Amino acid sequence: MQKIKKILEDLQKKKITIEDALEKLKILPFKDLDFARLDTHRSLRKNLPEIIYCEGKTPSQVLELVKNLKEENEEVILTRVSRETAILIKKNFPSSKFYEEAKILTLGVRKRRKRGKVLVITAGTSDIPVAEEAVIIAELMGANVEKLYDVGVAGVHRIMGEIERLLSANVIVVVAGMEGALPSLVAGLVDKPIIAVPTSIGYGASFKGLAALLGMLNSCAPGVAVVNIDNGFGAGYLAGLINKLCEK
Amino acid sequence: MQKIKKILEDLQKKKITIEDALEKLKILPFKDLDFARLDTHRSLRKNLPEIIYCEGKTPSQVLELVKNLKEENEEVILTRVSRETAILIKKNFPSSKFYEEAKILTLGVRKRRKRGKVLVITAGTSDIPVAEEAVIIAELMGANVEKLYDVGVAGVHRIMGEIERLLSANVIVVVAGMEGALPSLVAGLVDKPIIAVPTSIGYGASFKGLAALLGMLNSCAPGVAVVNIDNGFGAGYLAGLINKLCEK
Amino acid sequence: MQKIKKILEDLQKKKITIEDALEKLKILPFKDLDFARLDTHRSLRKNLPEIIYCEGKTPSQVLELVKNLKEENEEVILTRVSRETAILIKKNFPSSKFYEEAKILTLGVRKRRKRGKVLVITAGTSDIPVAEEAVIIAELMGANVEKLYDVGVAGVHRIMGEIERLLSANVIVVVAGMEGALPSLVAGLVDKPIIAVPTSIGYGASFKGLAALLGMLNSCAPGVAVVNIDNGFGAGYLAGLINKLCEK
Amino acid sequence: MQKIKKILEDLQKKKITIEDALEKLKILPFKDLDFARLDTHRSLRKNLPEIIYCEGKTPSQVLELVKNLKEENEEVILTRVSRETAILIKKNFPSSKFYEEAKILTLGVRKRRKRGKVLVITAGTSDIPVAEEAVIIAELMGANVEKLYDVGVAGVHRIMGEIERLLSANVIVVVAGMEGALPSLVAGLVDKPIIAVPTSIGYGASFKGLAALLGMLNSCAPGVAVVNIDNGFGAGYLAGLINKLCEK
Amino acid sequence: MQKIKKILEDLQKKKITIEDALEKLKILPFKDLDFARLDTHRSLRKNLPEIIYCEGKTPSQVLELVKNLKEENEEVILTRVSRETAILIKKNFPSSKFYEEAKILTLGVRKRRKRGKVLVITAGTSDIPVAEEAVIIAELMGANVEKLYDVGVAGVHRIMGEIERLLSANVIVVVAGMEGALPSLVAGLVDKPIIAVPTSIGYGASFKGLAALLGMLNSCAPGVAVVNIDNGFGAGYLAGLINKLCEK
Amino acid sequence: MQKIKKILEDLQKKKITIEDALEKLKILPFKDLDFARLDTHRSLRKNLPEIIYCEGKTPSQVLELVKNLKEENEEVILTRVSRETAILIKKNFPSSKFYEEAKILTLGVRKRRKRGKVLVITAGTSDIPVAEEAVIIAELMGANVEKLYDVGVAGVHRIMGEIERLLSANVIVVVAGMEGALPSLVAGLVDKPIIAVPTSIGYGASFKGLAALLGMLNSCAPGVAVVNIDNGFGAGYLAGLINKLCEK
Amino acid sequence: MQKIKKILEDLQKKKITIEDALEKLKILPFKDLDFARLDTHRSLRKNLPEIIYCEGKTPSQVLELVKNLKEENEEVILTRVSRETAILIKKNFPSSKFYEEAKILTLGVRKRRKRGKVLVITAGTSDIPVAEEAVIIAELMGANVEKLYDVGVAGVHRIMGEIERLLSANVIVVVAGMEGALPSLVAGLVDKPIIAVPTSIGYGASFKGLAALLGMLNSCAPGVAVVNIDNGFGAGYLAGLINKLCEK
Amino acid sequence: MQKIKKILEDLQKKKITIEDALEKLKILPFKDLDFARLDTHRSLRKNLPEIIYCEGKTPSQVLELVKNLKEENEEVILTRVSRETAILIKKNFPSSKFYEEAKILTLGVRKRRKRGKVLVITAGTSDIPVAEEAVIIAELMGANVEKLYDVGVAGVHRIMGEIERLLSANVIVVVAGMEGALPSLVAGLVDKPIIAVPTSIGYGASFKGLAALLGMLNSCAPGVAVVNIDNGFGAGYLAGLINKLCEK
Repeated sequence: MQKIKKILEDLQKKKITIEDALEKLKILPFKDLDFARLDTHRSLRKNLPEIIYCEGKTPSQVLELVKNLKEENEEVILTRVSRETAILIKKNFPSSKFYEEAKILTLGVRKRRKRGKVLVITAGTSDIPVAEEAVIIAELMGANVEKLYDVGVAGVHRIMGEIERLLSANVIVVVAGMEGALPSLVAGLVDKPIIAVPTSIGYGASFKGLAALLGMLNSCAPGVAVVNIDNGFGAGYLAGLINKLCEK
Repeated sequence: MQKIKKILEDLQKKKITIEDALEKLKILPFKDLDFARLDTHRSLRKNLPEIIYCEGKTPSQVLELVKNLKEENEEVILTRVSRETAILIKKNFPSSKFYEEAKILTLGVRKRRKRGKVLVITAGTSDIPVAEEAVIIAELMGANVEKLYDVGVAGVHRIMGEIERLLSANVIVVVAGMEGALPSLVAGLVDKPIIAVPTSIGYGASFKGLAALLGMLNSCAPGVAVVNIDNGFGAGYLAGLINKLCEK
Repeated sequence: MQKIKKILEDLQKKKITIEDALEKLKILPFKDLDFARLDTHRSLRKNLPEIIYCEGKTPSQVLELVKNLKEENEEVILTRVSRETAILIKKNFPSSKFYEEAKILTLGVRKRRKRGKVLVITAGTSDIPVAEEAVIIAELMGANVEKLYDVGVAGVHRIMGEIERLLSANVIVVVAGMEGALPSLVAGLVDKPIIAVPTSIGYGASFKGLAALLGMLNSCAPGVAVVNIDNGFGAGYLAGLINKLCEK
Repeated sequence: MQKIKKILEDLQKKKITIEDALEKLKILPFKDLDFARLDTHRSLRKNLPEIIYCEGKTPSQVLELVKNLKEENEEVILTRVSRETAILIKKNFPSSKFYEEAKILTLGVRKRRKRGKVLVITAGTSDIPVAEEAVIIAELMGANVEKLYDVGVAGVHRIMGEIERLLSANVIVVVAGMEGALPSLVAGLVDKPIIAVPTSIGYGASFKGLAALLGMLNSCAPGVAVVNIDNGFGAGYLAGLINKLCEK
Repeated sequence: MQKIKKILEDLQKKKITIEDALEKLKILPFKDLDFARLDTHRSLRKNLPEIIYCEGKTPSQVLELVKNLKEENEEVILTRVSRETAILIKKNFPSSKFYEEAKILTLGVRKRRKRGKVLVITAGTSDIPVAEEAVIIAELMGANVEKLYDVGVAGVHRIMGEIERLLSANVIVVVAGMEGALPSLVAGLVDKPIIAVPTSIGYGASFKGLAALLGMLNSCAPGVAVVNIDNGFGAGYLAGLINKLCEK
Repeated sequence: MQKIKKILEDLQKKKITIEDALEKLKILPFKDLDFARLDTHRSLRKNLPEIIYCEGKTPSQVLELVKNLKEENEEVILTRVSRETAILIKKNFPSSKFYEEAKILTLGVRKRRKRGKVLVITAGTSDIPVAEEAVIIAELMGANVEKLYDVGVAGVHRIMGEIERLLSANVIVVVAGMEGALPSLVAGLVDKPIIAVPTSIGYGASFKGLAALLGMLNSCAPGVAVVNIDNGFGAGYLAGLINKLCEK
Repeated sequence: MQKIKKILEDLQKKKITIEDALEKLKILPFKDLDFARLDTHRSLRKNLPEIIYCEGKTPSQVLELVKNLKEENEEVILTRVSRETAILIKKNFPSSKFYEEAKILTLGVRKRRKRGKVLVITAGTSDIPVAEEAVIIAELMGANVEKLYDVGVAGVHRIMGEIERLLSANVIVVVAGMEGALPSLVAGLVDKPIIAVPTSIGYGASFKGLAALLGMLNSCAPGVAVVNIDNGFGAGYLAGLINKLCEK
Repeated sequence: MQKIKKILEDLQKKKITIEDALEKLKILPFKDLDFARLDTHRSLRKNLPEIIYCEGKTPSQVLELVKNLKEENEEVILTRVSRETAILIKKNFPSSKFYEEAKILTLGVRKRRKRGKVLVITAGTSDIPVAEEAVIIAELMGANVEKLYDVGVAGVHRIMGEIERLLSANVIVVVAGMEGALPSLVAGLVDKPIIAVPTSIGYGASFKGLAALLGMLNSCAPGVAVVNIDNGFGAGYLAGLINKLCEK
């Protein structure tokens, strides 16, 4: 900042010509120039609170991170929070909110007006924790979220009876483990963007979600895109983003 | 159809009671009942012409398929069309249109009013054919499409100079081979839905696109979902779908 | 239901024509129409009790599920039941039966008349728990089950001495880990449907059952089909199904 | 043979005692003993003609093999026959029959009485060649075979309208590439043995049928077993075997 | 046995002709015929005591197995024995011998005269437990065993200074993890059969021994064959076998 | 550019204050600001001519690219150039130079003063084309390059006799296929930076270079880093870079 | 050489002391010292002619290599020789001998006295070319070689009838594709060293020999070691080596 | 040693001729000859203390190793040291130094003069422990080390603002998990040797660092080489080596 200001002052005082000023600006190190633009652009991204991914961090490490952020009065969302970590944070920040199944904990998150609808579907009951992560995140991003759980392809009548609900959402998150076939089925029923989340549910040749992941990537129905295995957060975020665009 | 009609007539003629009618409807085979509902639902899906995936089909096999569809006066889109196939179709249907780089051929596709914007980005020049497939499909679905090619992470200034264009689109398709890092970079710059398309461009440990696919699935920036390797069609379709929802 | 009834009443009262009724039925949401057909079809599937897969569920979660089902007086089969879970269920449902080696627990399962024969073979003694899961399930589906354990290819005389027993079964389940070669051997000896179950027994380049799985899929003898690694349940179910067809 | 006869003669002539004879029989080499038993058992397997897998063999190599077998007046079935090979065989054996789509060629195969029913289903049209291989083999094994093609999960109404046909078969072969989800759907609809055949149809992350294979192995519906990728022959053989057992 | 005896008696008593006897022998079930031959052949294999692989078995399960074998006064070798299991066995069979590093425990194993030489080499010190398993087994099979540990390729002078010892052995077992390069080096120095044992030593892209396994399979020097990852037992057994052949 | 100039002029003319100027600069789009800095930084990278990777491009596509670059009088290096492409370029640019074994073609590349030394080693003769690519690139970057070919681990005396040459280089490129063991050996002999290049030479379990790649990544000797399979260009570039740093 | 001689002369002439001589010898470069030792050791390896692996080399490249070796009057063995290459070599060296099925060509190879026996077994007829490579190499190394082809596990009686031949060999090479189960069967029958060769015969989930490779590595029978996929040469070499040791 | 001395004495005393002496030297076993050369060469490698990799070793095993080395008064560096091990070593060697985050412990390491600069960068905060291992090792090798943590591609402005620091280093270590895109970005910004370290940070399709590893190997920017997953030690060592060469 100081360097740019100096150049402008010199120009104003006619110590240097416009050509000189341009030349000097050109050779300024990046650091001094980028302040403005990056701050400006950053503000475009301020729709979501600060996110902390807690897997592999000890409760006290997480607490430390939270304390630092709260000093700046940030909205904070913790994902993959263990029960143990949640208890520690709660003790220090009693107003924080813990969504146990989704393993999400929020601090100081402001209410957002709910608009549009995101539908979150699971193939089985074991996929629900991943789905819940998507649900909470999409809600925090301002979406109304509806749930439709345990409607896998092996009982196709369950999903067939819910076509109206499928049609009522802007975007559909489909969470499935094992063979991961549900997104294809849903994409064949309705023309909505489908965000497919493979889960690590299964055993043997599921290879911790690889089978579901490959199945979803090879979906024979168009309209499906896939996020990482068990990445409920990513699916909820993207669904929230698309939903917001639809309601802008 | 006939069976249902017969039940209704019998009811009307009081040959049977309402309870009988209900009972009879219950035990009708699926085939007879589903005509209505499925036809109704199908019409919801009629936004896109019939699609034929031509890879692995001979020119004459493709011609046969096209002739059958044209009898019903369908709009038809062929993907992964070889030059040889294109020539044969053109000879039989001179009004058809061949997009050579995208390997797409269209027949009788009606003009759609363009709305909203989809941005299609590639990391390198070798990724362009896959990108072009996405471009044509998104356009056929009614999107204005802008292109930004050869802006990979190894020359980060190229993408940095285009943030305004990134911000102007409803949804961004990012096509990249090799390490597949561009979607993360773009998702870090703007809060837009990113559809990432890994390509099979690369050699050795790229394992025909696997490296790019894994890279994109593990993106450290939220807002990214991934389609199959080289699946420009799927990305263009999903982008077109999201774009239409944003402009509804 | 109510909507259909209303249409039929209106028709009966001649408030609407048959054509109107048909038109109205067509646009009814799926949910209202499918009640009948699906209930009818479901009853076709009522041969096996409700199944709960317990891996990854806590004892109390399992108990909750069981209680719900028992309210409806269902037959219930739990698979992959830990000792700890079994003890909890037993305390609440003293009449339940726990098959410890098979890790199966049953509640209120009715006796079925035994017909036909299923033979369950293992290559080694470590494969027995997976085999026992198949045994119990096939028995619950009404099959007489015979066992032939520890007859792997490295001691070929053991299986060679049992050809008569192989010939006496309608269908043979072959359970093997390591190189998974036993199904090929058996399929070369007798013309019976072979259901091959790879197990995760082995180490190093067995890659948790992958070697056995690939070996079985590549069997040079016809008549073999494969289920997931360690999937004794699936093999027992399919064997039971085929056996029942043979004895119908 | 001669050695056993000699022992028996010596016994009859009282040159040796019964104990001696038993002792001598014990130490006879395997080769001399097994003639009887193996010939006996072999005859149990004579239901199907001799099979020749032609992939990777030149037309003249195949011709050579066929000539040898025909000298013994065998029924012969060739699989994976190239057009070029078929032409050469036809020239030498004009009565042979070539099923072009299934790539099967038969020589001197006797008519078998048709019994029972096998249903062969495909997800897409590209899966048909693999399905046809299953169809021809199942027919050669004496099954009535019905076909239901292009009923993949992305258009679920297509399979839903055919539940009666699904129910009419003893065993169902389901052929699918890409995500390989159709077997789960079918197994969820009817309680029939399902033989799933993954095909190499697809691209990118289909990894030449691996995605479909894994999907089928992880089927969430019981009653499904899987054969090798593109193994229409194996599926047809196993289906024919089960069908025959059901009709015995 | 009884059936054969009866046939012989009938023949002796001239109740039946030689032709009859032959015919009857032919149709005897396998089980009755094979007693002799298999017992005879089995005795050829009696060079090594009974082996029990203990991984995945509880101490009490192992004890049970041992007790059964000891009733028949067998020589017994246990591999992959945990400390806990060893203590339990020792308490019940005080004369048993535990080789802690090799995780082998022997009971009642007779002294064998030592002949020939097997050399066991490791690349690093972490590979020693696998090597020790090979050492003990080869010794139990009658070989003199020499050890040369920690002579990996990164310090090539260590192995270069030992060429005389390499030349003195009949067969060389080379145990290595990480890149698994040592077998190639050794095979390039001396013309001896090399049995390569990849170990799971390493991290990251070693993928639990896969890197070493692939390296050894691709050895650019002839004379190398490979056993499973961490399979010291298999290498020791094969080395012992070859060594015995060389000294016969 | 124009926008910045306008701001500076306004400032000079006192139409705006320094604060205004700063504010206006802040909100300028990135594109207008970054011209200077990026051009400046780019010049730091101008040590190497423009590179075109030709694999997968037709001869005429390559020619087109070359023509565009030559208009700007660029130095151009083409890699992975087919013979056919080389002939076409030569016809249009007779002064271009084709290194056939390395598949490199250069146009208008200026002489650079040679400094320092890079040593390029191969395990076998089949690895030479990849090595030659590294050689030419390192030379173009100003290094003296020495070659030591066919000195694989299976003949360890060959590399042992060349320790002096190993010691004379700043950096060593080691090219090897099959088990990829040579880099470990070299790194164990001398304390020099080793750039390891796995090649796709091999068959079967080499999996097109995967075995060599994994071997090199797991090198038990420190001082080794790895580039992509067959990436002679990358190794030569990095070696050239390090060599230049050593000689600065 | 010259440097050492000079030191010795100086010592003899008492120009230097013994201590000086020792000191000078110590610092001599490796190259000058190793001549002796390596030449000596090399001669130990001169049992087999020079080997050239021809895959991926053009006929003229091979011819060049052969000419160079023949100048030194070497015995030469070429492996993986294409028909085209064989014709060219034959034209230049009419006395060379081409084994077409084994793809081996030999020049000037001296007769070796045959001793001992190697048995080479295949599971199927498609495995024969790989087996033939092993056969020729083992013969060239001085072994009597017997063949037993097409005795796979699916027809177990074929191998069971040949136990005497299995017992007559010093070492057994077992060649098999698909599930690769034959080595386990053979190792279970006889106590001989088994060298297992997986072949790339198969399709789909054989993954070009990976299934067979994994199967063989996981053999449940001890006494088996494995070489690379399709590596008939390596198996023949190792078998020849072991056979020679047995007959020394 | 004694043998050579004897030869030299005999020569000096003219008991033998120079030719005799040469002949005798030639046939000396390798062991006696190599003392000199190897000791000489070894001293070239004495720049770094003895390294012990502690993963998988118990605290007491590590203590044993340390005690042995300290008897020879060696400098010792332990890597991957658990807290428990560190405490035990500290108790025995109070002057040892434990770097907890890097899991490195040093004993008796001499101060080295710091020269040049190595820059260590991480994409995220979870990558820091791996980075710290590189930092400590590079410092122990005499480099000044600067750190730049948490500058991943999803926030590209962070790295863009630090180009001057990138330019100030001789070599840059880039540590990243997940998609591993940061090395490409850095290599695109500055012409410095980049040593890329993939970490196992991530989940699902990261496959324990495989995604990052493949991403880095496929970097589209030249100047990048890769070490094993989580191999901070290797990266620090290589960086230290290159840095020293640059400052020599």
